Amino acid sequence: MPEIDFRSDNVTAAAPEIAAALIAANSGTATPYGADSITERLTHCFAEIFEHAVAVFPVVTGTAANALALAALTPPWGVVYCHEDAHAAIDECGAPEFFAGGAKLIGIGGERGKLTPAAIAAHLTEPNFVHHAQPAAISLSQSSEAGCVYTGAEIAAIGEFARRHGLALHMDGARFANAVAALDCAPADVTWRAGVDVLSFGASKNGAFAAEAVVFFDPGKAADFAYRRKRGGHLLSKMRFLSAQLEAYLADGLWLRNARHANAMAARLGDGLRQAGARLSHPVEANEVFVELPDAAIRALAADGFLFYRWGGADANCIRLVASFETKPDEVAQFTAAAARHLERSG
Amino acid sequence: MPEIDFRSDNVTAAAPEIAAALIAANSGTATPYGADSITERLTHCFAEIFEHAVAVFPVVTGTAANALALAALTPPWGVVYCHEDAHAAIDECGAPEFFAGGAKLIGIGGERGKLTPAAIAAHLTEPNFVHHAQPAAISLSQSSEAGCVYTGAEIAAIGEFARRHGLALHMDGARFANAVAALDCAPADVTWRAGVDVLSFGASKNGAFAAEAVVFFDPGKAADFAYRRKRGGHLLSKMRFLSAQLEAYLADGLWLRNARHANAMAARLGDGLRQAGARLSHPVEANEVFVELPDAAIRALAADGFLFYRWGGADANCIRLVASFETKPDEVAQFTAAAARHLERSG
Amino acid sequence: MPEIDFRSDNVTAAAPEIAAALIAANSGTATPYGADSITERLTHCFAEIFEHAVAVFPVVTGTAANALALAALTPPWGVVYCHEDAHAAIDECGAPEFFAGGAKLIGIGGERGKLTPAAIAAHLTEPNFVHHAQPAAISLSQSSEAGCVYTGAEIAAIGEFARRHGLALHMDGARFANAVAALDCAPADVTWRAGVDVLSFGASKNGAFAAEAVVFFDPGKAADFAYRRKRGGHLLSKMRFLSAQLEAYLADGLWLRNARHANAMAARLGDGLRQAGARLSHPVEANEVFVELPDAAIRALAADGFLFYRWGGADANCIRLVASFETKPDEVAQFTAAAARHLERSG
Amino acid sequence: MPEIDFRSDNVTAAAPEIAAALIAANSGTATPYGADSITERLTHCFAEIFEHAVAVFPVVTGTAANALALAALTPPWGVVYCHEDAHAAIDECGAPEFFAGGAKLIGIGGERGKLTPAAIAAHLTEPNFVHHAQPAAISLSQSSEAGCVYTGAEIAAIGEFARRHGLALHMDGARFANAVAALDCAPADVTWRAGVDVLSFGASKNGAFAAEAVVFFDPGKAADFAYRRKRGGHLLSKMRFLSAQLEAYLADGLWLRNARHANAMAARLGDGLRQAGARLSHPVEANEVFVELPDAAIRALAADGFLFYRWGGADANCIRLVASFETKPDEVAQFTAAAARHLERSG
Repeated sequence: MPEIDFRSDNVTAAAPEIAAALIAANSGTATPYGADSITERLTHCFAEIFEHAVAVFPVVTGTAANALALAALTPPWGVVYCHEDAHAAIDECGAPEFFAGGAKLIGIGGERGKLTPAAIAAHLTEPNFVHHAQPAAISLSQSSEAGCVYTGAEIAAIGEFARRHGLALHMDGARFANAVAALDCAPADVTWRAGVDVLSFGASKNGAFAAEAVVFFDPGKAADFAYRRKRGGHLLSKMRFLSAQLEAYLADGLWLRNARHANAMAARLGDGLRQAGARLSHPVEANEVFVELPDAAIRALAADGFLFYRWGGADANCIRLVASFETKPDEVAQFTAAAARHLERSG
Repeated sequence: MPEIDFRSDNVTAAAPEIAAALIAANSGTATPYGADSITERLTHCFAEIFEHAVAVFPVVTGTAANALALAALTPPWGVVYCHEDAHAAIDECGAPEFFAGGAKLIGIGGERGKLTPAAIAAHLTEPNFVHHAQPAAISLSQSSEAGCVYTGAEIAAIGEFARRHGLALHMDGARFANAVAALDCAPADVTWRAGVDVLSFGASKNGAFAAEAVVFFDPGKAADFAYRRKRGGHLLSKMRFLSAQLEAYLADGLWLRNARHANAMAARLGDGLRQAGARLSHPVEANEVFVELPDAAIRALAADGFLFYRWGGADANCIRLVASFETKPDEVAQFTAAAARHLERSG
Repeated sequence: MPEIDFRSDNVTAAAPEIAAALIAANSGTATPYGADSITERLTHCFAEIFEHAVAVFPVVTGTAANALALAALTPPWGVVYCHEDAHAAIDECGAPEFFAGGAKLIGIGGERGKLTPAAIAAHLTEPNFVHHAQPAAISLSQSSEAGCVYTGAEIAAIGEFARRHGLALHMDGARFANAVAALDCAPADVTWRAGVDVLSFGASKNGAFAAEAVVFFDPGKAADFAYRRKRGGHLLSKMRFLSAQLEAYLADGLWLRNARHANAMAARLGDGLRQAGARLSHPVEANEVFVELPDAAIRALAADGFLFYRWGGADANCIRLVASFETKPDEVAQFTAAAARHLERSG
Repeated sequence: MPEIDFRSDNVTAAAPEIAAALIAANSGTATPYGADSITERLTHCFAEIFEHAVAVFPVVTGTAANALALAALTPPWGVVYCHEDAHAAIDECGAPEFFAGGAKLIGIGGERGKLTPAAIAAHLTEPNFVHHAQPAAISLSQSSEAGCVYTGAEIAAIGEFARRHGLALHMDGARFANAVAALDCAPADVTWRAGVDVLSFGASKNGAFAAEAVVFFDPGKAADFAYRRKRGGHLLSKMRFLSAQLEAYLADGLWLRNARHANAMAARLGDGLRQAGARLSHPVEANEVFVELPDAAIRALAADGFLFYRWGGADANCIRLVASFETKPDEVAQFTAAAARHLERSG
């Protein structure tokens, strides 16, 4: 059996459309550092999709996008409120703290990896009190670390809370496409219309080689960002090759097509596992499945050659399965069949 | 006339061999964050070319490579001595200071963009004196910002000076290939054998889409570097696509073949301009030509459609011409002929 | 009634012995920046009291002591584990994160403001995993933010845990004197003998004008600290005046005498309040009393002119009373009598 | 002979008036962290002396004052232009770079330790060019590191230059009193009226134990400064003792009286040395004398027991003599007589 890989959506190759765009961009000389024609078109492209003026800054990693965006939204003595499982808080080795000059990320609990105004309110530090780091921003992940999705209304409630408390609102959209595909909404509905100021728009997990974009919905607030990006070593000289990936990703709805496929595969995984008698830790709303299985079944699946991560520590009885734009129905079928077999045996 | 572009070697496309390698790597899943097989091979490949054990960290920009490398070599209260025109000091918007937590770069004058032990000695701050930032490292650019090349002996003299003063030695090798091609030496001769501790090994200007590598010649000193890179947002999830570029760059001597071509084109440019009566600001030793021309000639060349930068300010009568692996003999011929024409007219 | 002030031990004046020492030191010239004879004696003085070689760095605030000490114990990508109510985590406006280049403080719950090995273990991030900030240090407060005291055995258990996990151990001793007075132990027993590497030794709250000392129990690890202090703007030119305060504080047991008095006053406050029927939030072990009172009683006490802070928010029914070396038995008696009166009325 | 000490004005004790004020402030409790009545009065006192609304932040060192002030005036990607001998650039171990998150200080040459608009203009980096650190602020020292004094007109010219280029203007006034005494001008004339935005107002060298103040002439721009100071560990809990020093320093013209005395002693030193045949490196305009002497004379003076520093390295034939508010005419006479003797011998 060839390896069937559910470890993450970052184990994938790049989508053929994006590879083709990269190669197409690979001829002739171009003005470096983002003054090329592809990068120029990209801004228009984002503006159209989001139905709003934007300032767009392509970078190569989600960590860079998040850390740079958060640094633009908080002073060094500020606090960013995020979910306690947020990638920015847990999986970026302190990059946001580094870029923000030592600001604090305060992690907050919440069902399905999601924040609520009430949960944030319970953690707000005291404004204008010199001993406390100062409330500065909220960061939420769409889709969340639990593979769940904020509705537009849920985000708008947080956006309203943010406005009332003078906080900026950031969205970590490493899996933004999966969320929009799941909600089948206008991208604007879950971003600026709901109060989001800055979006880390991900493409690497859903088809690009390595491409993310920091999107400001108020371009006037992006004035300093170019310096932050350059100073972080994230201004590519041959920017066209980064922009070309993003342009192809947005063109003809590739981003949503890929995301819909990944979501559908995850849904199918979830259904199959539930039918086999497994308990899902969270509802499957985007492209991730968190499922509780007996240790014996987990080991047996690994022995079968399926690739996936245990979730919550090396001896946790929960695994995460991530579907991607490359996941094949047959791979899903093989996995759910094997899981059903192992569950029956251990049941 | 199609545009003939001598602005920089970063206006180029990627070399076909590197584009092919990227596409070849684009199938199947791979363990992310550098635990893939291409990245693993890459370390062996560098070790072989440098005849030494190495730790290799691919990143996407020269600014990232320099800033991360320097941060690894100086404490926040340290001083890095470099040429006053060094890219790290002038053209990175303070990235090294940012990554190094506020360390100082002290710029030192020197002919042909090159440092000497004597020049550095004249700027050494007082060691073990708590009021002064502490001597920590030297950074030299090979080839230099003036398009010149340090000989192995020149570097060894600086290496010896560094050792004697307890300083680390960094080399900014954004154009390392051009220097090695010019010297026709073993890469080891101008790096670890001459006392270089860490090299920023460039590929973006000489054939890659976006790929540089930080190379430690003492892998034992690289222990923390992985954290620095991650924290800087420079650890790519789909690392194989970065490593594939570097692997192709090193394979079959592509890096030196490309560099030799660029150097040859620069030499031809220099010869042609000298014969036309122009004065070269520096000897042409690698792939850059700095030439003094009357203002009228500079304007006329620009009006002809040639692309290049004035050097030393908007009204300087010096221009920089950078040849690349893509520069064609015919482009050189057209330029030198045009220059000769304009010089004659203005002479 | 003159104001009776239980707001904090930092509302106090300086002890007469310390004022006298400052004035005594105020004649003639002295070598600046700590090369004076008083500062030199100070190191011996600390070494004697702690029965161990030490490196001592006087500074003017507890925030500076903590932030500088923690920065010396963690890399920028490190994690410092502390109690969720720790001064360093909550009341220093992010100073430790600033000095440590963006390191993380992870707050951990625990009875009486105290950490345990088990509680820390539950929060340890994964070592050698590049995505996670790395376990670096533990910081505990002696006495704690709840006015409680770690026994030598409790600290030793944390010290052993720290050693096993490669973590440094810091003690925030803003109220170290109160803890040592409470335990009636050798200072060594609750510091280096129990595994403490660096102590923020406080004097400002217990008799000094403004004086704290960062004490390293392994002077070999203090090599860089002088640069950190200078660079933080915390190296006083006229150091003798800082050292003279600390010398007088340690001389003839003033530090313990003052602390014993403060502790005794707090104990008396606690006893009186308990007898009046109030519930204490924590046992009174050092010089702080946390007592739950009906809102009406709290307001009545404030109206009487007593000064104190509500604890846990503006509408919390808990107040904190801090006794100091200046607190008079009569002030305690007045307060407990008034509290008894108001409790009876509201009861 | 008792030691006669010309090493620096920071070897001095505190002035009796300031010691008396400290002791006077040492009774009763006070609201901590600057909400006490002395600190409140201090702001009015500064406002009166400067004839302008001010925001005043007392701190304990000149390094803290400079580093915090500069951090408030430059973004992390900014450049501060200062004299190449400026204390902030040379003698603060990189504190400004640390507090400003990695900003650059660019040192500029100039006679008598002074900057001019033309000299700054020659070093301005390119605004709005993302590769260059951005012009942000100018810092000048009054009096200068060479013991010289900017006239109001000279400062105003720099202030006008700053305004034209969008730069903030900072003044390092560690020896501000000496300059104002020398010029016999209104403090306003050499600060806000000449375009200075923020002043590091020194007292430690001229009578205080340890007290400086950061003075903002546009209080509206000081909003964030309280967080910076706290976060730097520079917000003293018992602030009244810092403010009391500054209040006494300003009261009854003590600051100018002390400075006038120091200046007069320096003038007398300069005159005596010139008459003895020595060459002064700079005119004596404030309280410092830089004098060139034969090596033999320097050694002989040191052997006599006079204390001073060689200037410009261990084998330079220049020494610096600093007069202070404590310097006695007889000490000056002894020194000039001895110098004359040794000069005659070596002449």
